[in-house]
Amino acid sequence: MVRENIHIKEKLLEVGATLFCERGYHGTGIQEIVDALSIPKGSFYSYFKSKEGFAAEIVKHYADHVSEVWTILIAKGPDDDPLKMLRNAFESIIQSQDACRVKTGCLIGNLAGELAESSELCRGTLKSVMVTWCDRVAYHLERAQVQGTVRRDIKADKLAQFCWDAWEGSLLRMKIENSTEPIRDCVSLLFDVFLKPK
Amino acid sequence: MVRENIHIKEKLLEVGATLFCERGYHGTGIQEIVDALSIPKGSFYSYFKSKEGFAAEIVKHYADHVSEVWTILIAKGPDDDPLKMLRNAFESIIQSQDACRVKTGCLIGNLAGELAESSELCRGTLKSVMVTWCDRVAYHLERAQVQGTVRRDIKADKLAQFCWDAWEGSLLRMKIENSTEPIRDCVSLLFDVFLKPK
Repeated sequence: MVRENIHIKEKLLEVGATLFCERGYHGTGIQEIVDALSIPKGSFYSYFKSKEGFAAEIVKHYADHVSEVWTILIAKGPDDDPLKMLRNAFESIIQSQDACRVKTGCLIGNLAGELAESSELCRGTLKSVMVTWCDRVAYHLERAQVQGTVRRDIKADKLAQFCWDAWEGSLLRMKIENSTEPIRDCVSLLFDVFLKPK
Repeated sequence: MVRENIHIKEKLLEVGATLFCERGYHGTGIQEIVDALSIPKGSFYSYFKSKEGFAAEIVKHYADHVSEVWTILIAKGPDDDPLKMLRNAFESIIQSQDACRVKTGCLIGNLAGELAESSELCRGTLKSVMVTWCDRVAYHLERAQVQGTVRRDIKADKLAQFCWDAWEGSLLRMKIENSTEPIRDCVSLLFDVFLKPK
């Protein structure tokens, strides 16, 4: 029974993440989510106190998924070339976006735009997810700085935040243009030009 | 009467833009908007065919406002130093965000995250607004390239798109961190480092 509960909770988070990605937080009703899983609405509230709490858990769930994807991509290496490794990771994400008919972009960026002011709970969760992503990228950029493959005049944490900004902005542009060209251009400019040593 | 109609339509767009900024498209009801103006709901539909059409007009209305702000900021110059002029414009926007208690960011970016997949009408409007912004910035970056104050190894239109990406991403981070530090950092890195000639 415990196992089944975990399974249902997981399913609710997955369906919620997909619908939030496509239609946003406010555009998604709890009713649709429970309908998609053929479970009664009441049981939703046995797993989550509120829609806001559900959204915060979806952000964490999505972040766990993104983190796993990044761990796999980073493990592909090359470990001795952290800059190349990071670039390969971004290129893989571009390929997966190419394969998607609907370009949903990044749930973190989408929900930041929609929810950051109206939900302090979600804002806090979005922040911790963003910081974790930046810390990971900064760690590898710093390794690349030591190797001399990344410019050293800007601290790795600031470079990582800038990468986050440019990447999230380019994902918005991808959605607006319904094309992956913006994220391709962004990654090319970051890795071929802006991160390079002077 | 025609004048009054224009006035009411304008008010609907203004209230709509404010609420869309704060709560997103799906989080804002037509009822709230008409209540805020004490007009009957029916009269909303004499101005707009649907909520989607209303959103597309809000995007245009917001874009007109942003365009006017940019025209004013750019007129402040210095006209003979387009790079400095662009930087001054961004710095003024940072100051105005500093003055806002609620950091709403950019309606274009917020709605791109929320609506680009679900409304083809809004996606088209968002795209034309984004292209107009990028064209304007590219025009001045190209002038700066001729002067030698901006790097010439990347075309001005690609640089302008990259500025859009980084700026929009940093506005999302501003919302997540509830601080203008991200947009300050972004503008500093763009103007002090990345746009500079090699």
